[in-house]
Amino acid sequence: MHPRSARVIADLRELAALTTDDRGAQRVAWGPVWRTTRSWFSRKLEEIGVRPELDGAANMWGTVPGRSSRSLVIGSHLDSVPGGGWLDGCLGVLAGLEVLREARANGVPPLTLRVVDWADEEGARFGRSLAGSSASAGTLDPDAELGHLVDRGGVRCGDALAENGVSFDTMRTAAAYFRGLNPAAYLELHIEQGPVLEEIQEPVGVVLGTMGVERHMLRFVGQAAHSGAAPIHLRKDAFLAAAEFALACRDISVRHSGPTPKSRVVATCGVVKVEPNFVTAVPGAAEISIDMRALDARVLAAMYAEAREASEVAAKRHLVEVKWTRVWDIPPRLMDETLLGFVRDSVREVTGRAPELPSGPLHDAAEMVPLVPTAMIFAQSSPGVSHTKIEDTPEPALDASIQAFLRTVDRTITHFEG
Amino acid sequence: MHPRSARVIADLRELAALTTDDRGAQRVAWGPVWRTTRSWFSRKLEEIGVRPELDGAANMWGTVPGRSSRSLVIGSHLDSVPGGGWLDGCLGVLAGLEVLREARANGVPPLTLRVVDWADEEGARFGRSLAGSSASAGTLDPDAELGHLVDRGGVRCGDALAENGVSFDTMRTAAAYFRGLNPAAYLELHIEQGPVLEEIQEPVGVVLGTMGVERHMLRFVGQAAHSGAAPIHLRKDAFLAAAEFALACRDISVRHSGPTPKSRVVATCGVVKVEPNFVTAVPGAAEISIDMRALDARVLAAMYAEAREASEVAAKRHLVEVKWTRVWDIPPRLMDETLLGFVRDSVREVTGRAPELPSGPLHDAAEMVPLVPTAMIFAQSSPGVSHTKIEDTPEPALDASIQAFLRTVDRTITHFEG
Repeated sequence: MHPRSARVIADLRELAALTTDDRGAQRVAWGPVWRTTRSWFSRKLEEIGVRPELDGAANMWGTVPGRSSRSLVIGSHLDSVPGGGWLDGCLGVLAGLEVLREARANGVPPLTLRVVDWADEEGARFGRSLAGSSASAGTLDPDAELGHLVDRGGVRCGDALAENGVSFDTMRTAAAYFRGLNPAAYLELHIEQGPVLEEIQEPVGVVLGTMGVERHMLRFVGQAAHSGAAPIHLRKDAFLAAAEFALACRDISVRHSGPTPKSRVVATCGVVKVEPNFVTAVPGAAEISIDMRALDARVLAAMYAEAREASEVAAKRHLVEVKWTRVWDIPPRLMDETLLGFVRDSVREVTGRAPELPSGPLHDAAEMVPLVPTAMIFAQSSPGVSHTKIEDTPEPALDASIQAFLRTVDRTITHFEG
Repeated sequence: MHPRSARVIADLRELAALTTDDRGAQRVAWGPVWRTTRSWFSRKLEEIGVRPELDGAANMWGTVPGRSSRSLVIGSHLDSVPGGGWLDGCLGVLAGLEVLREARANGVPPLTLRVVDWADEEGARFGRSLAGSSASAGTLDPDAELGHLVDRGGVRCGDALAENGVSFDTMRTAAAYFRGLNPAAYLELHIEQGPVLEEIQEPVGVVLGTMGVERHMLRFVGQAAHSGAAPIHLRKDAFLAAAEFALACRDISVRHSGPTPKSRVVATCGVVKVEPNFVTAVPGAAEISIDMRALDARVLAAMYAEAREASEVAAKRHLVEVKWTRVWDIPPRLMDETLLGFVRDSVREVTGRAPELPSGPLHDAAEMVPLVPTAMIFAQSSPGVSHTKIEDTPEPALDASIQAFLRTVDRTITHFEG
């Protein structure tokens, strides 16, 4: 193992020991374990002579000033879901710490180097993910998006932020703070959180971008009826229409998926609710969510159109009505071509190949794409899951991903100093 | 309108006025409005010189002794669901009251005539329907079936019974009480509660029997995964398997249905629950209920076998496991051929036709079938719904159904006095 990888992994293990219980990592943003995490990270920065700084959205910044004020920003997040894993987010932040550590040991770097621990990437407590990075990107409207949020214990989001010295007003200052950092590029190392690299037996992957997302709720409305009294041909069974829609969406995703990881798309019905939800009642209403993702905006638009059509066909067949409500959407966010070249070269140097894949999950990097040239590297997940304590990456893959990332950082510095 | 029908309808309206609020009928068994209902019914019996009697299961009996102690029992139920209609159950009890009223006016009848208001047919408060009639039939095990039941307010079933002078011990005496009544036949008039007679524009129907029921819960178990990270071909989506199963069950019911109301069968997935039920999570588990009904026991057995097979096929296709849990079942309960003949003749005399149909919903009559010759008549529901305040039957259909029922009673008396 490369000694720099070994240092990153040692830090990861130290943090895991500090913040994990028998159910997994508990670094949920805005809570006590998260504050412990950040005290630990502050000490880590101070040990290398870097004074941590918080912006108005509670993003934690560490900076090694360079000969140029132009900044290379390296980031990810230390927060986790409740019962999460040891790598999701932390890998990228602690790889960034290693970049700063090495730079401090070698004098003044040509570019200013910054590591950022984005606040509340997961949205685990209040449901709004990417809170910190979107505040920095200027795409978050705190009052409108956070003002009404309440956690399961009844605590308002605004009160939880206040416990951490943050308000909606201070959050609005994060975007100007970010612009003031003179960012030239953004790099992020993250675990894949899925089974794609594991399936093709690749330790490290080149991320092409984050998929665009179309997220909607559908409500099918028919007529509740007695399960014994209502003949099949007279029913208006809202659930059967929803069931047919879900299967059609799967077919749509299969039809639009290409043969390579790069060309895959997904569609998921994750929320299903029927009314009145009695054993003896034909469902009179059914609510179902659809979450469709693709890297190609035109493909995503086609999938969305076909899903609308499929919902109408299903509704008609089962004599029910359907109504769509848009929940959320984001366009595909494609990585910068120049930085992608550095990533490809670096991954190939370390592993011999440079497999490309889109990211289905969102990442803080998606918020950076519209602002600065951005790139991401994935480390293989094995098992190919995340948001669980069994999340893991084999040590050789971890080593390779860190090496490839550090090489990408070097190439990026060289590029921007020129 | 026939004057005897007019008396029954006047009683129905009087009871509705006494026990209905703006949300519908509120005669929920074991509660205060139900007790009001029964005080009213007691007075109605006393007005014609009949002393009401309660058995150990709180079934209320009124008797006009005949020259023979052999009894014709006429029954249904005065209890309703919360927010129910004015006819469901009451129609049959008050038609029985009319039989007793006429008999009292005409001296001593050849057979003993009894009307029964079965207790808690609906099971609306504790979930166990047909409580009173199954106690009389000896098919209820009160401790095992009622002992653990609690209503939404936390009141135990045993305590609610005690408020009405009933215990599990007294309930067990109801079967001997019933046998002591020397029952020769059982007749019940009820609204259809469905749209079949309305669709074929028939005011009155001949009930062939109550359908057998196979009721099960299925649990499909796959693997929860991130909606963005998990490629379609590697998913184990438990909901898609459940959706495919539900659509297959509809196909099974269509395949086994004949062209006439008599030959129809039904299958319903009324309860659906997915886990973890997040917009961004591929469902790792899905629970779904299936309730299948048919009048022909062999057809029901075939439907059940095909549904098991369909669940295995769906599970295999989506790489998940499926487990069945039996919730409840009852065999088809066929009406007595001799009494059916009387019903056919009576309905034809009044309406010119004698359309036959099975009952999908259960009725107290289903509990009587194994004990005594039993028959039922349906009055058209229009709209074809029940368990709602908009439940109704057009007055001409109500009149015709009561006339056909009274003629059936006369034919039955003549038959058994011979």
